[in-house]
Order: sequence, then C-alpha cells, then structure tokens
Amino acid sequence: MSKEVNRRICLRSRPTGRIDGSTFELVEEGVPEPAAGQALVRNLYLSIDPTNRVWIRDEPGYLPPVAIGDVMRSGGIGRVVASSNDGFPEGDLVTGLLGWQDYALVGEGQSTLAMPLPSDLDAPIESLVGLLGITGITAYFGIEDIGKPQAGETVVVSAAGGAVGSVAGQLAKMRGARVVGIVGGSDKCSLIVDEFGFDAAVDRHDPRWQALLTDACPDGVDVDFENVGGEIMDAVFGMLNLNARVVLCGLISQYNATGRPSGPTNFPRLLMHRVHLQGFIVMDYLPRYAEATAKLAQWAAEGKIKQRDTVVEGLERAPEAVNMLFEGQNVGKLMVKVADAGAAHG
Amino acid sequence: MSKEVNRRICLRSRPTGRIDGSTFELVEEGVPEPAAGQALVRNLYLSIDPTNRVWIRDEPGYLPPVAIGDVMRSGGIGRVVASSNDGFPEGDLVTGLLGWQDYALVGEGQSTLAMPLPSDLDAPIESLVGLLGITGITAYFGIEDIGKPQAGETVVVSAAGGAVGSVAGQLAKMRGARVVGIVGGSDKCSLIVDEFGFDAAVDRHDPRWQALLTDACPDGVDVDFENVGGEIMDAVFGMLNLNARVVLCGLISQYNATGRPSGPTNFPRLLMHRVHLQGFIVMDYLPRYAEATAKLAQWAAEGKIKQRDTVVEGLERAPEAVNMLFEGQNVGKLMVKVADAGAAHG
Repeated sequence: MSKEVNRRICLRSRPTGRIDGSTFELVEEGVPEPAAGQALVRNLYLSIDPTNRVWIRDEPGYLPPVAIGDVMRSGGIGRVVASSNDGFPEGDLVTGLLGWQDYALVGEGQSTLAMPLPSDLDAPIESLVGLLGITGITAYFGIEDIGKPQAGETVVVSAAGGAVGSVAGQLAKMRGARVVGIVGGSDKCSLIVDEFGFDAAVDRHDPRWQALLTDACPDGVDVDFENVGGEIMDAVFGMLNLNARVVLCGLISQYNATGRPSGPTNFPRLLMHRVHLQGFIVMDYLPRYAEATAKLAQWAAEGKIKQRDTVVEGLERAPEAVNMLFEGQNVGKLMVKVADAGAAHG
Repeated sequence: MSKEVNRRICLRSRPTGRIDGSTFELVEEGVPEPAAGQALVRNLYLSIDPTNRVWIRDEPGYLPPVAIGDVMRSGGIGRVVASSNDGFPEGDLVTGLLGWQDYALVGEGQSTLAMPLPSDLDAPIESLVGLLGITGITAYFGIEDIGKPQAGETVVVSAAGGAVGSVAGQLAKMRGARVVGIVGGSDKCSLIVDEFGFDAAVDRHDPRWQALLTDACPDGVDVDFENVGGEIMDAVFGMLNLNARVVLCGLISQYNATGRPSGPTNFPRLLMHRVHLQGFIVMDYLPRYAEATAKLAQWAAEGKIKQRDTVVEGLERAPEAVNMLFEGQNVGKLMVKVADAGAAHG
C-alpha cells in the first residue's frame, strides 16, 4: 500500500550556525504497528520552537542532544489512529514530543513523552499547539510563578511578537503592569500594541532602539521576561530596578551562534540591585500543566488573551520553519501542519 | 587641647582603577559635641571591605556614592564617649557606618546608620567586626537563606580566604556539603583546608586553575558563593548543576575595572540548568542581624567556626588597606585599628 509510508526527518549532521540542506534528511519507512500497550499517532501539527535548534547542538542542554540518525525531536499534536493502550483511545488527540514524522508510536516501551488531551476540549487544534500548548503554558508559569509583576510595575518582554512573548505580555497586562515589548519590525510593533494591548513597543531594527527602550521604561524595569539574550538582554539588565526579577526563558540570539557568545556587561547590576534571576524550562512544570491550560482556556474564552498563529504547510518544510523563527518571520505561534485534523489513518 | 582633633579621611577625587594618593585627603577638625538626642562615638576598628571601592564610584550602586569632600563611608565599631541619647549609653559599643574618622556622631539628625551592641557580649572586639559583624552575617544569610546547600552537594566559594568566604565555607561544611575554595596563593590553599576545613582548594594563580577546579568538583557545582566575578565566576558557571544556586554576593574583580568588564560567557547555562541566581546585599537583612549574630556566636563558642583577622594599625592607613584587599594581602577579616578598645575620650 503506497500510502503506508512514514516520512521521518532525521538529523544527518549538526549545523554550524544556521540549519541548512545538509542538516536533515528525509527517510521513508513503513508505518509502524503498535505493539501491546502502544498506540499509533497520526501527527497533525508540529510546534516549531527555538529550542529545536538547542536540541541538535552537541552540548549539554536540558535534554540530551538528538543523536545523528534519529528523528528530529519536536513538540506536536496528533490523533490516535490505532491503539492497544486504554490511556490513548483511538480518535483522541495526543500532545507530546511526537517528532518530525507522519506517525509516532507512544506508550509502553516508547521513550516519546506524550499525553492524551481531554476529548471534550472546545478549542481549535491550532490553539492547543500554542496558546493552550507549550508556549502558552510557558508564558503562564513565567509570569505567574517567577516574574509575578505587580500593578504599576514595568515588564519588558523580548521577542514580544512570538508565541511565548505575546502571551506573556498579555498576562502581565492582566496583572496591572505596564508592559513594553521588544520586536523586530514596525509591523510587529503595531501588532503587539493594537492587538495584544502592550503599552509600548520597541523595534530592535531601529538604530535608536536603546534610546527608545529607555524612553519606554521611564521608571526602569521590574520584570524582564527574557526570550532573546545578547545585547537586547544586556540593555534591559542595565535598567533593572531594585529587587527586579529576570524570567530567563530563552536566549534565541545565541542558539545559532558559532563562537562563544559574549556575556552581559551589565551583569554587576544583578548584584547591586538584588535581582532574582531564574532559569526556566517549562517541562519542569509538567505536573501543573492542567492548571495553566484551564486558566488560559478560560481567559481566551473571555476574550482576555488572544493568539496569532503562523502555519507552515507540510512536514518537509519543518527545517525551513525553524530558520523562519530565527529570522523573525513568524507572528505568534509558528507551527507546521502535517495533516488535516480530520485525517484518517494513512 | 591638642588631643581634641577629629581626623577625617575624606574623598578628594574618584579613582580610575586603583585607589591612589590623590583619592583621599586627611582633614583635621575639632571633635564635635553631641547635641540633644545625639551621642559621640570614639571609633575603635574600621571594617575594610570590597564595597568601600564600590561606594566611591560615580555609578548607581546600592547606596548613593560618597560625595566629593565627604568623609569616607565605612563600617566600624566604636565606643560611646559622650551621650545625650538613652539608646547609646556612655561606655557602650556601637556598630554601624561610622566612617573613616576618629569620632562619629550618631543619633538624632545624623544620617549615620548605627546601632548599639549588647553590653554583655563575651567576644573580642575584633570578632565583632568580622565573624559576628557584617562579613560573618553576610556569610550566614548567603548560605542559610539563599544557597541552602544540602548534604552531599558541592559548594564553590571564591575569595575563600577572605572574611566572607572563609565563614561561608565553614557554614556550608556544617550543612554537610563538599566545599571547594578558590584563593590566591598556596599559603591560602593550606589555610582554608587545614584551618577552615574546606575539602579542596584551588589556587587561582596556578596556570592550571581551571583544570584544578574541574578536578575538585567531580560532581559539578550546586552552589556558587560568588565573591569575585570575572573569569573565575565564568568557569564556575560552566560547571553549574541542574537547579544550582548562585549567591551573588560580590564581584571584587570588577570594582577596580576601568573599562566595561565583559560578562560571563557561560551565562546560557543559567537557563539550561534552571539556575536560581540572587543578587544579595547584607543590609537587606538588617532586621534579622540578631538571629545571625546569635547563631554565629554559638557556633564560634562551640569551636565549629573560626575566624582569622588581618589588623592594620592606624586610621591613616585605611586607603592603603582597601588596596591590600584587592591584592589579596589579607587573610580573613581585614580591619583598621583606630584606637585601643579601652581608649578614653581623646
């Protein structure tokens, strides 16, 4: 049966800098049969995140690097198409590290981190990838558990037009903070102010960005929701107030770096201003995901938070999609659509 | 009366780099009379700390910079020699920011931060400057409140032969941690191992210091009690374990810097390993000083912690003493003796 092919995008070589044509290769295999205790998942959407780039470096990270020859690690959402595991009933949606492939096996003997989604979810599948998925959950815990902005405080969010940043900013607004977003491009400046309700936006492509940032934060910075690193983070560090919090969530400016990136020159301010900095990976909050999803779903239903999606069609475009992220070509959540949500087996 | 002179070392110009002969000037004034609600304190010992150098920079710090012409700010201990303030009875010891001078006025209308010491203290005055003073208290809160090393964890203390570091290491040992100290010179290596009970010492003057540090921490680093900054901190950052804590207590390598110091290149590890970093100034713990002093006094009496002192004789040598600190010429607590403890008025 010619349709019964599982396309898998596997790591061929570790990139120096940007992902290119030699980084991955497409391998076609037969669709696996679920063994006892396993389920077969048809992947629908893949979540494209800066961390994809981290996972293919040959360096200690928060997960082991993807091995050469292995399918690329990726968050995603799929539907169970065959099952001999009662925890994953046929027809149900599954979220987890499903990988860049058409089909994934989950359950017994499989290392794939996956969990079923409630079958009564009243939300489009795209929102399960972003707002109610890993990136929304990241924004939730970063703001509610670490940054904890108070009314009247100033919060700076870098990569504010992205999946995490756009939600983080809206959550900070809900807590009464003044929220300033740093983005690339004037279109995104308009977007985060007009659609997401940020108080001010700074275009990092503007040669005056540092002065604009200073102007946008007349009372300094109480919370840095940091997604970028590099000179942008350094500038924010230079404005941190007494007892400020740094939610160290991402360092996208560093993930493609080939040399050793320089560190923040304003680091001493962390001492002088008694800053609390917390490195933060959302996976650590796994036991509390349901709490975050419930809150986010409620606020979305009430119209308090909005999400934008950028959907790239076709599994084969996943490597290209990662590069789009580093070039800031996405607005909101970037995802790859692998198959229609209603797609049956094959 | 020729003896009735108050020598005051005042800031003449802000140094570029190291303190030199043009930084301070000695001004002789009459000994002030305490007004109603004030007390006159005869200074006995001045605490010489890296932060003295921070206070004379023209940069935002945790206290306003010492103004040109003002007496140099300094911690110290003195005895009340005249009083019209019941909170400071004549004959009692006082601790606070008494300044580089023979006499200080405290009490009403005076900005000098000062508090009386219990009159029944059974400890040599030197220990009140160090172990039971600001530096011991700093070590206490840094370890007990922020670093919180657990049994079996690895703690690295930089400037481990100094007043804060030597006590911090001993407190970490009491909690059952493996403690590694970084010091300058083989003498200090022996000292911290033989006298203070550190498990290992690394001489930062040894060209192989990085390899030695790696060898001394086979299980990585769980707590970095950071007093130094620069390349030493960066090396420790590169070894931080999952959920490690950085007690950001001092950055002595930066305080004499003339250019903008480079930042830690291993900064991304704070993200990947979910590190908790806390900038920390002991003054924030002022309401809890008594708790720290009581514990430290008890442990010292039980022989569980020891202190070394380096005493420089003579108020006029205070500027020179600060430079000694940056050159690592002190062992343990560095202080300037201004007058004999039993000295009467004048």
